[in-house]
Amino acid sequence: REELITLAHGAGGKATHTLIEAVFLEAFRNPLLEPLADGAVIGDLALTTDAYVVKPLFFPGGDIGDLAVNGTVNDLAMCGATPRHLTASFILEEGLPIADLRRITASMAAAARAADVHIVTGDTKVVENGKADGCYITTAGIGALDRGAALSAASVTPGDAVIVSGPIGDHGMTIMLARGELDLEAQLTSDTAPLHDLTARLLAACGDAVRCLRDATRGGVATVLNEIATASRTCVILDENAVPIRPQVRGACELLGIDPLYVACEGRMVAVVAPHRADAALDALRSHPLGADAALIGRAGDDPPGLVLLKTCFGGTRIVDLLVGDPLPRIC
Amino acid sequence: REELITLAHGAGGKATHTLIEAVFLEAFRNPLLEPLADGAVIGDLALTTDAYVVKPLFFPGGDIGDLAVNGTVNDLAMCGATPRHLTASFILEEGLPIADLRRITASMAAAARAADVHIVTGDTKVVENGKADGCYITTAGIGALDRGAALSAASVTPGDAVIVSGPIGDHGMTIMLARGELDLEAQLTSDTAPLHDLTARLLAACGDAVRCLRDATRGGVATVLNEIATASRTCVILDENAVPIRPQVRGACELLGIDPLYVACEGRMVAVVAPHRADAALDALRSHPLGADAALIGRAGDDPPGLVLLKTCFGGTRIVDLLVGDPLPRIC
Ligand SMILES: Nc1ncnc2c1ncn2[C@@H]1O[C@H](COP(=O)(O)OP(=O)(O)OP(=O)(O)O)[C@@H](O)[C@H]1O
Ligand SMILES: Nc1ncnc2c1ncn2[C@@H]1O[C@H](COP(=O)(O)OP(=O)(O)OP(=O)(O)O)[C@@H](O)[C@H]1O
Ligand SMILES: [Mg+2]
Ligand SMILES: [Mg+2]
Ligand SMILES: [Mg+2]
Ligand SMILES: [Mg+2]
Ligand SMILES: [Mg+2]
Ligand SMILES: [Mg+2]
Repeated sequence: REELITLAHGAGGKATHTLIEAVFLEAFRNPLLEPLADGAVIGDLALTTDAYVVKPLFFPGGDIGDLAVNGTVNDLAMCGATPRHLTASFILEEGLPIADLRRITASMAAAARAADVHIVTGDTKVVENGKADGCYITTAGIGALDRGAALSAASVTPGDAVIVSGPIGDHGMTIMLARGELDLEAQLTSDTAPLHDLTARLLAACGDAVRCLRDATRGGVATVLNEIATASRTCVILDENAVPIRPQVRGACELLGIDPLYVACEGRMVAVVAPHRADAALDALRSHPLGADAALIGRAGDDPPGLVLLKTCFGGTRIVDLLVGDPLPRIC
Repeated sequence: REELITLAHGAGGKATHTLIEAVFLEAFRNPLLEPLADGAVIGDLALTTDAYVVKPLFFPGGDIGDLAVNGTVNDLAMCGATPRHLTASFILEEGLPIADLRRITASMAAAARAADVHIVTGDTKVVENGKADGCYITTAGIGALDRGAALSAASVTPGDAVIVSGPIGDHGMTIMLARGELDLEAQLTSDTAPLHDLTARLLAACGDAVRCLRDATRGGVATVLNEIATASRTCVILDENAVPIRPQVRGACELLGIDPLYVACEGRMVAVVAPHRADAALDALRSHPLGADAALIGRAGDDPPGLVLLKTCFGGTRIVDLLVGDPLPRIC
């Protein structure tokens, strides 16, 4: 039986991890790729890339353009870097209105200004009608690392505080609503935002006590925490009551039968911080508009290693595994 | 009337230039992007990107994988940089056989080894069946600049020698034949190859006398020379008899009614060199297997500025303009 690519391979969860490890890492293996972090750290430089295939191209709170800039800015910020220069490569579908393209490039330019980065090189390809979906964008970015300490999921230690920078799931649910596939009239906008300022503030306040940063994109907070638990051989224990979720997101998730822990954000991050600096980290995050609702949502423990456990509101405990399948295709 | 994206916007010629200048440069404008060179030069670093949408994915002499590595390696080499690190971002169509993906990643790994670069970070997105064409890849690359002199199209001066590193048009014609759209049985393989070694040899031999390097990809040698003529306000005068073209390429071009000067190469470059070092440049290029058939094909003149003129075999002269339309869609 021939193995084929499925949508789940793009969801950021279990199938994506398997594909990346069995196909891409296997073929390209080298020490810089191996950590499979948000970006690669090359001396005092960070390098990262993402493709954007979000559908629809325009949605409340943003469009594919600001997503493509903010997403790459954020992966650089998660490396502890100051984002500097971006590349922007476009695959355009024949028939795309140039007015739409102008709206997208205007968003990108505004997002680049807001994040203080420059788009310095790019590429433009066109494919026949029916061979793309309006517009796909791939950005890559380089950033400057000027701090001593290395951030890494592997450095997370039992006792560490697990913090989320704000309410989760807004982006994913906004996209689902924007597709009109849900019979729901909720007021929701994407959380797409550049997080480099927030990370700079956190790192300035807590320095080496910050173990690891990850933006909670595809697969959501649950997937990011699984990656951290696996890499550090710790057990991440979450307190369900502490996880900030907007009522509209909770409602939409219930209708769709999706756990909000798996829903993508585009302007939220998970920070793991040594216990003695947890309060300082929360203060630093909350001093910034993008971290105003930051919350301590759990702790790293030691047993069982590699698992994420959720203490539910009802007093029970359940395992939060990697995302399986693809409940929300083409969210970013 | 609403303006729409057409295939010509992706051909690398007149429509591409207009779109890049009116939409992308207009929105993103900054001094590093402005020269619109093969890549951006940022201090002692070069940065570049290209998307690859070639159809078919596999063809004689290569596949989308080695194209995606060599193409980005070459744009770095054209900046005068030593290619170092690549990113690789995949947009996969649901239903793509994983065996095909493995073939592609194996080619990329081999091409990366051959060019002495590492693929250090990547991304994987999946779109629904019918929303891509098997696989699109975007690579970005960074390279190290360790030479003093800056290469630029603007620095070309009347009298300079215009050199091409080998026979032109092999890649484009190979793709057309591989699509089976031509009733022709020619033995042709793509010229896809990494040019960083060849550029290093040329720069070592001729240093500052090398004014400008450009790989002759979409739009071919004619388009590259137009860009050079425009940027330098010189007139490039070509000798048709001197342009190396394989008989099979010439034959296929005649059948298709295409001028080989516009056909994409993926392993050939144009080098413009100060007159006193023209012979040294040819010797340096010919000492390398990828430059064995390098040829002096013309000179920069001063009048009329901004034009490319071809002295034909019949003794006439005609203007070689930018490519119009898209005779060869999705060649790379
Ligand atoms: N096709 C690929 N080739 C090489 N490495 C890849 C590829 N796809 C992903 N990776 C690597 O796998 C890791 C996880 O990638 P992933 O795209 O899930 O991270 P992310 O960009 O932080 O998340 P998102 O794409 O949802 O924003 C990263 O280290 C990335 O460099
Ligand atoms: N969408 C875009 N946004 C910003 N700059 C772009 C964009 N597309 C192209 N450019 C810039 O325009 C110039 C020409 O791009 P082009 O892709 O034709 O060059 P190339 O990569 O050398 O050729 P090819 O893509 O055929 O290999 C480059 O400087 C590139 O950075
Ligand atoms: Mg990330
Ligand atoms: Mg990302
Ligand atoms: Mg290009
Ligand atoms: Mg080029
Ligand atoms: Mg190129
Ligand atoms: Mg990614």
